Amino acid sequence: MTPRFERVAVIGVGLIGGSFALALKQARACSHVVGVGRDPRNVRLALERGVVDSSETDPAAAARGADLILVATPVAQAGKVFASIAPALGADALVTDAGSTKCGVVAAARAALGEKLRQLVPAHPIAGGEHSGVAAASAQLFRGRRVVLVPLAENAPAAVERVSGAWQACGAKIARMEPEEHDAVFAAVSHLPHLLAYALVHELAGRENSAQLFSYAAGGFRDFTRIASSHPEMWRDICVANRDRLLAELARFAAKLESVRGLLQAGDAGALERLFAEARAARGRWLEGEYDA
Amino acid sequence: MTPRFERVAVIGVGLIGGSFALALKQARACSHVVGVGRDPRNVRLALERGVVDSSETDPAAAARGADLILVATPVAQAGKVFASIAPALGADALVTDAGSTKCGVVAAARAALGEKLRQLVPAHPIAGGEHSGVAAASAQLFRGRRVVLVPLAENAPAAVERVSGAWQACGAKIARMEPEEHDAVFAAVSHLPHLLAYALVHELAGRENSAQLFSYAAGGFRDFTRIASSHPEMWRDICVANRDRLLAELARFAAKLESVRGLLQAGDAGALERLFAEARAARGRWLEGEYDA
Repeated sequence: MTPRFERVAVIGVGLIGGSFALALKQARACSHVVGVGRDPRNVRLALERGVVDSSETDPAAAARGADLILVATPVAQAGKVFASIAPALGADALVTDAGSTKCGVVAAARAALGEKLRQLVPAHPIAGGEHSGVAAASAQLFRGRRVVLVPLAENAPAAVERVSGAWQACGAKIARMEPEEHDAVFAAVSHLPHLLAYALVHELAGRENSAQLFSYAAGGFRDFTRIASSHPEMWRDICVANRDRLLAELARFAAKLESVRGLLQAGDAGALERLFAEARAARGRWLEGEYDA
Repeated sequence: MTPRFERVAVIGVGLIGGSFALALKQARACSHVVGVGRDPRNVRLALERGVVDSSETDPAAAARGADLILVATPVAQAGKVFASIAPALGADALVTDAGSTKCGVVAAARAALGEKLRQLVPAHPIAGGEHSGVAAASAQLFRGRRVVLVPLAENAPAAVERVSGAWQACGAKIARMEPEEHDAVFAAVSHLPHLLAYALVHELAGRENSAQLFSYAAGGFRDFTRIASSHPEMWRDICVANRDRLLAELARFAAKLESVRGLLQAGDAGALERLFAEARAARGRWLEGEYDA
């Protein structure tokens, strides 16, 4: 059953926060959304488009009287936001977040929320992309996408249920993971690819003949580097928050690349073709849904 | 003006060869297309769909009497095909190819075609992708795409003009490069990204928890790894043919990755954000067409 919320506070009215607001409204799951954003133009746009119904500059003011608060800022700001809203949280208020890393967010919450930690049910919606800002927000963003809930030992089952219901009202499918497992998985399948895409584009852009190189880049390059258009601050925070796991992934990838380099250096055509074929087959199984949960 | 061809021979009826045939037919630039393919099912499909009008198993038989021959096989086979068709080439016949590397193709042609080298105008259509086979062929594949011509000193201007016209009849925009320049540019913007995508997917697929990892991979991963679904044999040949330039690109990328690793290790959030922002800005300029030729 779709839960009902009277006042939803969205701290960070960007792509994710704005889409959450729109989706809850479309599901008739909330009466009023109050938004907080750092960029006044973004907040004005959110008001104009009816993404939020009112705005505040202070997270605590937005959280006061809210029964659901979404923290959708870059992850490095989560601790500050938690500390700011803690005194304003009503006894029945629930908090969730949208951070792409979870260990750091949970640690920050533990430090900032004290007794009220039980009111936070951390989450990570697997949605987004290279577009950012409320201008790209959509009520459909989470439809059919997974949201990973990372419930805390302190959470009451009813709190988890209600936050889960909010994300489901947005159209999301719910998965559950431990913070450590979450951060390890996403270091591999999301954070590393972002770092590789940024590195490749930066490497090419820094060359004398970069204009010529880009002029011949085509569709394959466009898709491969799409994630290099992602939000720099958001990805800075993710990389720093998940540094150790990302370093481990980088080391694994560098080792694999070194082994591919060895095959190429040796002109081992058969081994290269096998590797390519195995990669293509694995990706094919993934696309066919063999790994769907 | 669109050139006219009586008999076009397509050696290698796959995505590129099939699309070339369909596009020339649509442009009414040819009367008859004869196809040669290694896979009888693929050739049968090409006949059934009217991609080709007849088929041969022997490249020489297809080339005999043809006024235009497209060699659209994986690049390692180009030399053998050139040697096979050389005795069958009429005095006015023209040959072009679709190989993604050019130095090796030109060297193979020099060895195999002898006097008839002047009849070959090498080309590389910047089209294709993760789909292969004649089933994916389309008369629209080259529309608005670039075809890089790599004319030889031996070519008569009229021959270059006529081959250029054939590709333009397919809707392509023509660029010209030297073989060495071509192979260096595409090592950077195409061959390296393919190798990275294959390597990443292979690395993840080989892990104990690969099913879990893939189950959380989302849209960013899908786009980043799309080129890892490309044809393994085709990419084996490209990597081997362009080995030295690709090794040089791998070394540059590994050095860049090592510098990014250093920033991450040091927790240098500011430098990471600057690098991400510079990469995003460069990609944005590219998407906006700033580097279009």
